[in-house]
Amino acid sequence: MIESKIWMATSSDDKYKEAKEVLAEFGVELGRIDVEKIEVQADDPVEIVEYSLRQMEDDGRVVVMEDAGIFIEHFGGFPGPYSSYVLERLGNPGILKLMEGVENRRAHYGSAVAIRRGSEIKSFRGYVRGTISESIRGTGGFGYDPIFIPDEGDGRTFGEMTEEEKNVISHRARAFRKLGEWLASSP
Amino acid sequence: MIESKIWMATSSDDKYKEAKEVLAEFGVELGRIDVEKIEVQADDPVEIVEYSLRQMEDDGRVVVMEDAGIFIEHFGGFPGPYSSYVLERLGNPGILKLMEGVENRRAHYGSAVAIRRGSEIKSFRGYVRGTISESIRGTGGFGYDPIFIPDEGDGRTFGEMTEEEKNVISHRARAFRKLGEWLASSP
Repeated sequence: MIESKIWMATSSDDKYKEAKEVLAEFGVELGRIDVEKIEVQADDPVEIVEYSLRQMEDDGRVVVMEDAGIFIEHFGGFPGPYSSYVLERLGNPGILKLMEGVENRRAHYGSAVAIRRGSEIKSFRGYVRGTISESIRGTGGFGYDPIFIPDEGDGRTFGEMTEEEKNVISHRARAFRKLGEWLASSP
Repeated sequence: MIESKIWMATSSDDKYKEAKEVLAEFGVELGRIDVEKIEVQADDPVEIVEYSLRQMEDDGRVVVMEDAGIFIEHFGGFPGPYSSYVLERLGNPGILKLMEGVENRRAHYGSAVAIRRGSEIKSFRGYVRGTISESIRGTGGFGYDPIFIPDEGDGRTFGEMTEEEKNVISHRARAFRKLGEWLASSP
């Protein structure tokens, strides 16, 4: 294994917790660095995290960053990379209002995880496909979870699932699982 | 005057044209550079343009950049710095749908212009205040012009005004006019 301890640069408690639990499955310990990330405007979360990692000062530690968004098909991917910004301003009620009368409710959550070791940067993607619900349901999870119904489920929203249920199929867990596999299999 | 010819880095024909006409009032010629700008995620357009300018390679020319957005009060400034992205995905019909039943229709257009000469960067802001209309009106202008009614007018939207009428009060013209005054008064 390349590293048994790596560091996540994030300001989100929720994201850090989810990532830490997934990496523990691979025997990797995840520390946390609280930095102001420079986030570029781009449609693809991979582009955003790789840019942020390159801008961050290198103090010798192996650092990971994650960026995620919900991409609604009918709106060409909106809110996508600006999901946090839009959630703060419009909230889930705003999204449901926009979706009124819209037949195509398909959406996916996408996560991009990038790791930097020295000058090397490697990225991993995770997805979960589903639909936007007709109403806000559940208080679990965070972000758009109460309006997102994953295909691989029983019709409940992410907000109605336990953390354990969500972590099995979530976009973020999937991206971090790929990272974990890569770390575990590297010589 | 510091410079009689400066260069605008932009991919927008409309913005270039508006800026060129305003600067001509001050005897400043505006050339154009077509580059892929690096735009950072930030709430304030000034932060975005200054960052973009700093990232752009310096070939000795004096370069200006502009960033603008429409800030809707009820939605905490949304879509703000992501106005172009949101316009492409939701369009003006999407904004009007979000505004259905919303009493506070106040909004402002904000523009930030930054100029770089060597290592020096200077910024100028322009605003125009108004309200979001109940329907899409007019085919003039671009962006959110057909749903924005400036306070300093007769109730028409920017989309219903001639270019000349809009240029007298527009946020972008105001920011570029400040730049023109600064250029004209500099020794």
